[in-house]
Amino acid sequence: MKKNFFVLGFTAFILLAGCSASHAATNLSASKENHFTYDHQEEWEFVSGKMQSPIDIVTSQVIDYKGAGLVLNYDQAGTSIEDNGHSIQVGLRGTAEIDERSFALSQVHFHAESEHTIDGKHYPLEGHFVHKAVDGRIAVIGVMFTAGKENQAFGQILEAAKANAKGEKGITIDNLDIGQLLPAHLGYYHYLGSLTTPPLTENVEWYILKDAVQLSQEQLDEFYKYYDNNHRDIQELNDRKVFIKS
Amino acid sequence: MKKNFFVLGFTAFILLAGCSASHAATNLSASKENHFTYDHQEEWEFVSGKMQSPIDIVTSQVIDYKGAGLVLNYDQAGTSIEDNGHSIQVGLRGTAEIDERSFALSQVHFHAESEHTIDGKHYPLEGHFVHKAVDGRIAVIGVMFTAGKENQAFGQILEAAKANAKGEKGITIDNLDIGQLLPAHLGYYHYLGSLTTPPLTENVEWYILKDAVQLSQEQLDEFYKYYDNNHRDIQELNDRKVFIKS
Repeated sequence: MKKNFFVLGFTAFILLAGCSASHAATNLSASKENHFTYDHQEEWEFVSGKMQSPIDIVTSQVIDYKGAGLVLNYDQAGTSIEDNGHSIQVGLRGTAEIDERSFALSQVHFHAESEHTIDGKHYPLEGHFVHKAVDGRIAVIGVMFTAGKENQAFGQILEAAKANAKGEKGITIDNLDIGQLLPAHLGYYHYLGSLTTPPLTENVEWYILKDAVQLSQEQLDEFYKYYDNNHRDIQELNDRKVFIKS
Repeated sequence: MKKNFFVLGFTAFILLAGCSASHAATNLSASKENHFTYDHQEEWEFVSGKMQSPIDIVTSQVIDYKGAGLVLNYDQAGTSIEDNGHSIQVGLRGTAEIDERSFALSQVHFHAESEHTIDGKHYPLEGHFVHKAVDGRIAVIGVMFTAGKENQAFGQILEAAKANAKGEKGITIDNLDIGQLLPAHLGYYHYLGSLTTPPLTENVEWYILKDAVQLSQEQLDEFYKYYDNNHRDIQELNDRKVFIKS
């Protein structure tokens, strides 16, 4: 198994260095241009890396999306808090029904500035609610934050982060009004992408909520004491389309 | 863009050759063991290749799957036929509702022996109905074929393949009773995998139908004149689970 995996990796490198961009990862129809034989499967080309996140969302080019939308059943509690060296992360529990499929919520963490941009514009902060379905599918709901009135729930997270930084153990956040970390309306931009930190895995469904959530400038500044530049560069859209569910 | 893509590919190779298997592609939680900085994103590790197809389905280990199941609305016609050098492929039209999400059908092609195995056992032939959702998600419904009574619809495909081999152009298959290429009951095994031919893309939802479909030994032998060994080797399951919808 390990050997097989290495061969795939090496083949990917050869392909990337040696072939033209016409080998799109979304190309479904084999053709005579795809030279491969079943007798030499170890030589097969493995293409990946064209569906990365984050991206710039160009609102003039989004396509209307027909879907059942989002139904979020998140518990009102943070089960843990962690500074993992790349973000502040709060353990969460609950489920998201996305297009009538059930995903389990695991955590939320934050990026500054935002990772995704809307028409080239960053928000000061982006929260990522990370979910996983039983079959391994990953879905992330992204929330844009903007400077405005104080956000009590985000304040609770900052409090917990401070206690955590002081070395306190086993911190939980009781009575976390998680609804304050989400906009009232759950319209979203949707596309297929990747995790935005290594291993950058490409099986991720993205749902970036259209409406931003407010927190105060003081709260932003408090977060920036931990991280003020933990956002990945914008990635190429390539052959992907971005959808909107209003 | 091109440069960025190359760097990702190269980084993947370095990682695959140099790191331990503990960097699972499904690992969601960053930790201090993940050494990366936002100042040197070009060095980030991009892991892929652990969700390949086909696999062996071990029926004693499958997990019950809650889903709305499959509703197939396939047109009764083959819009084209092609010998692409790796299989006989019939252009199709229609839709599949998979867990209440709509996928467009594009084609069916056949592998001999079967690509997937059930408890280590190959079937003599496996058909792949390939679908794509508007957001780019790929879903393949796999049908196992077994030697038995003659299959009229498969006979129509063999006729078209013969005409195609003689150089006839613009062949279509009218009045194709596509239901004959599917079992009566649409229970399935489900897992997340990849295309089984290059570029081996890993965004594929697999639905392997539990019940096999019959065709005659003569029809199998006729297909084997074109391809009798166009199946990819079984791939490692790694961290994935396989589900069953009865």
